[in-house]
Amino acid sequence: MPCFALLVEYDGAPFIGWQRQSAGLSIQQVLEEAAAHLNGGEPPLATAAGRTDAGVHAEAQVVQVEISAELPPERVRDALNFHTRPHPVTVLAAAAVAPGWSPRFDAIGRAYRYRILNRRARPALDLGRVWHVQRRLDAAAMHEAAQALLGRHDFSAYRAASCQAKTPLRTLDRLDVTRLADEVVIVAEARSFLHHQVRNLVGTLAEVGMGRRPASWPRAVLDGRDRARAGQTAPPEGLTLTAVRYDPPIAWG
Amino acid sequence: MPCFALLVEYDGAPFIGWQRQSAGLSIQQVLEEAAAHLNGGEPPLATAAGRTDAGVHAEAQVVQVEISAELPPERVRDALNFHTRPHPVTVLAAAAVAPGWSPRFDAIGRAYRYRILNRRARPALDLGRVWHVQRRLDAAAMHEAAQALLGRHDFSAYRAASCQAKTPLRTLDRLDVTRLADEVVIVAEARSFLHHQVRNLVGTLAEVGMGRRPASWPRAVLDGRDRARAGQTAPPEGLTLTAVRYDPPIAWG
Repeated sequence: MPCFALLVEYDGAPFIGWQRQSAGLSIQQVLEEAAAHLNGGEPPLATAAGRTDAGVHAEAQVVQVEISAELPPERVRDALNFHTRPHPVTVLAAAAVAPGWSPRFDAIGRAYRYRILNRRARPALDLGRVWHVQRRLDAAAMHEAAQALLGRHDFSAYRAASCQAKTPLRTLDRLDVTRLADEVVIVAEARSFLHHQVRNLVGTLAEVGMGRRPASWPRAVLDGRDRARAGQTAPPEGLTLTAVRYDPPIAWG
Repeated sequence: MPCFALLVEYDGAPFIGWQRQSAGLSIQQVLEEAAAHLNGGEPPLATAAGRTDAGVHAEAQVVQVEISAELPPERVRDALNFHTRPHPVTVLAAAAVAPGWSPRFDAIGRAYRYRILNRRARPALDLGRVWHVQRRLDAAAMHEAAQALLGRHDFSAYRAASCQAKTPLRTLDRLDVTRLADEVVIVAEARSFLHHQVRNLVGTLAEVGMGRRPASWPRAVLDGRDRARAGQTAPPEGLTLTAVRYDPPIAWG
């Protein structure tokens, strides 16, 4: 059967997350039900590079789906965009891939952006897209703290209790903290992340930014390997999956 | 009575526009009802620099309000932000102003940004914030056409039938068209604009961008002074009021 990779953008706000659950509507369900129209009415399984949580957004999630219809990638993209309406899930591009190709296991890199709106007034235009922190954050101190976390480590301290990964070892390639006017933006890159890893890192760095902890603290938390010592899990709405990399890169149509 | 200027951000999507109307909820009503809590329970009149239409957003609308409570500007801001909840209207800053000061008549400049999402796939993350145009736009041709509209002209051809301005003469100081990846962004600046002027300019420039009309056409439309000859009114959701200027500038607290 024809197998496609899809580059997908979504607003996480109305969904219970990527993964199908009985409790509510997931991005997976929206895509699978749209793809059913190209699969003789039967919803195929859609798998994703990153199983984002409820409220987390994607600019460039990568999804794999197998359908029975023989169509060029552009037609697959347009047909899916017709059938995902009115949900805020849109297929930016599609590409034919080999059967057995996995968006999750074949990925060699993932990038996330976390946005903190750092001002007194609550968000209006960016509601649902940012974590609102009123207390002034020292982005330079956060960035300094973040650099001590780069490289290959046991990230148990930054891992959700629910994390299903076999090992807590991960290699953090980039963790940049930058201020842009009223926003503090954190960019994280790694081959893969543990469940809640980015949000736990952000919540811990925010403690440094607020001046409650020294810049050396996030590394001490890492070395302690104890989740209970880290900062709070930053809320999901500030997080966006911005890129997934493959080698060779996917030839988007 | 103490008189305040307010710097206000809002998402235009859920509102019938700035102005109070019986048909639905306006930004004016949300602010006036919030200000009533600082005015002995009586909603004061709120006036704005620009009376934005339904669906139009603001990053920096300027509003004037007179209240009976004697409070420092920061307290006015915080109290209003408490009472405008849960609506996507937020007061970024407040400043004491002289009685009789008008955000509308004392303004010496206004700036708007119009965003066009120019790609095949419909918007998900930017839904309600952009005009979605699937056909590829030539932003350079649009920019060239726009430059011929700068300066002081009779803008009757770009004016809504409902426009209440006494004269169609306006001085357009800036009309820049730039492409940023999948987006075409138009920035417009003038002392003041006619009703629908920016949206009519954008709709007309888009005809050039799609190759349906030459770059000389928007100027010919201007010279014809006939609204019926111009392009469509671009939809409101792409438009954001980004700045209002005063001389002297307002000293935001």
